[in-house]
Amino acid sequence: MSEIGSDQPVVGIVGLGSMGFGMGQSLLRAGLVTYGHDVDPGRVAALQTDGAGAGTLPEHAGELDILVLVVVNAAQVDDVLFGRDGLAAKLKAGAVVVGCPTVAPEYARSLGKRLKEMGLLYLDAPISGGAARAAEGKLTMMCSGEPAAFAAARPALDAMCETLFELGDAPGPGSAMKIVNQLLAGVHIAAAAEAITFGVSQGIDPAKTVEVISKSAGSSWMFQNRGPHIVEGDYTPRSAVSIFVKDLGIVTDVGRSSHFATPLAATALQQFLAADGSGLGKEDDAAVAKVYARNAGLKLPGMD
Amino acid sequence: MSEIGSDQPVVGIVGLGSMGFGMGQSLLRAGLVTYGHDVDPGRVAALQTDGAGAGTLPEHAGELDILVLVVVNAAQVDDVLFGRDGLAAKLKAGAVVVGCPTVAPEYARSLGKRLKEMGLLYLDAPISGGAARAAEGKLTMMCSGEPAAFAAARPALDAMCETLFELGDAPGPGSAMKIVNQLLAGVHIAAAAEAITFGVSQGIDPAKTVEVISKSAGSSWMFQNRGPHIVEGDYTPRSAVSIFVKDLGIVTDVGRSSHFATPLAATALQQFLAADGSGLGKEDDAAVAKVYARNAGLKLPGMD
Repeated sequence: MSEIGSDQPVVGIVGLGSMGFGMGQSLLRAGLVTYGHDVDPGRVAALQTDGAGAGTLPEHAGELDILVLVVVNAAQVDDVLFGRDGLAAKLKAGAVVVGCPTVAPEYARSLGKRLKEMGLLYLDAPISGGAARAAEGKLTMMCSGEPAAFAAARPALDAMCETLFELGDAPGPGSAMKIVNQLLAGVHIAAAAEAITFGVSQGIDPAKTVEVISKSAGSSWMFQNRGPHIVEGDYTPRSAVSIFVKDLGIVTDVGRSSHFATPLAATALQQFLAADGSGLGKEDDAAVAKVYARNAGLKLPGMD
Repeated sequence: MSEIGSDQPVVGIVGLGSMGFGMGQSLLRAGLVTYGHDVDPGRVAALQTDGAGAGTLPEHAGELDILVLVVVNAAQVDDVLFGRDGLAAKLKAGAVVVGCPTVAPEYARSLGKRLKEMGLLYLDAPISGGAARAAEGKLTMMCSGEPAAFAAARPALDAMCETLFELGDAPGPGSAMKIVNQLLAGVHIAAAAEAITFGVSQGIDPAKTVEVISKSAGSSWMFQNRGPHIVEGDYTPRSAVSIFVKDLGIVTDVGRSSHFATPLAATALQQFLAADGSGLGKEDDAAVAKVYARNAGLKLPGMD
């Protein structure tokens, strides 16, 4: 931990869900003066208990050097910056906005332009990793933006990330790489669900499938991570079905506007939509396996 | 290497393609008397140069303790055992047939019964791993069969495998696990192609996608293995497009007969079929990326 000095940047973080709260804790642990903001005042108070500044973030917006947005989507980014809170107009010249939600590259580019016109910097900075890694300051970020935006954001990036990919000198490539990752992640989760449940249809126990495939060429990061959720019938949401409805929706929307056919992403999206539509939206994304099981008249662990 | 002794089993291996030839070399290196058989007499002669027995395998069929089949599909297994060569009728009682092709579990079960009625043992033993690992005796096998079949086949299994999964005491589960693996492998190859080419549509260099995703949650064994083929534009067939047309065809056929919907496998199959149908069937399976590129008016490395 470093000492809090007067030359340390002041950081605001908006969106104190499981990811944002952990990121706020990492900022505080690194000794940065940090203000938290959330629709739930209880989350703000909880971060203050961990050392965050008193008062509200909008009150202190003019003091911020770095504003980290950990809201869910582009609409919420717009709302925070230009809507109800109108934080963009309150920031001082040269402050950097660090945008972490998964958004379309075109949105990241246009947001960068809009902020630049207001004298602000923008770092296109989608994140990867779960709540646990957020709290440990060990996230992966896929970033792009002007060198000045990287430089201004660096103390916060260092506090929050273990791995930082620097993907270009303008907003866009960071978001593009993130949606490439989400295409694969979403397809791999649905494929794990399809394969494990297909195995059940052939008389193979899910635990045996996870054991064997984890050591075989059919494995993926997501298979190894989500497979055990299916084996244990544990759908406590580490990351919810609804997140992949959103992210694969962005993938297929961007594909369509780019005249790029994404048949696997589109198919996986339909499976997550079927999970969401049948009431599983808030369950762990591995619950897409229940759609496969139900469609085949099968039962997985944890299904009644 | 062990000494060749009179108590060592005599092994026959049918199908001396890149996998079977390497497996034959591993059998020889382990000191087992081995006869090779292939539609191409040149392959048989080449294995004899490496130490395989003289004469033809059918001539020596009555001496075999273990018959390893490394042919392409169920039709070829039938042909070898009951058709032109009619090897099953020539084997001595108690000999074990080790079936390595990817086949439907139902086929494996019925073949086991048919051989049992002839006084023979059957090990359902699909393989995973490439030609290099075959030659090193480091394959993965997903096996099931009677304990007597495992016991009889053990010297050959030990010579050919690094990892042996024992999945049950009857034919069926070995093939079932293999097609679960092939479902995932095929979907993951097509997903890697979809994602890397989607990245190109967003202005991201394929090498950058492979670098970043290999360290991210979107990674898979296949992404890391096949991604570099796309980056380098190198479609020398390590495993051909046609193999996944066959294997995903088995997955979807078995799914249909089991009333199990496999939307991702079915979608990936269509992409491999489009690759095959447009003349890429003998190229490396990563060439499915060319279908994505062509459909979007994009060029990948190695495309004219």
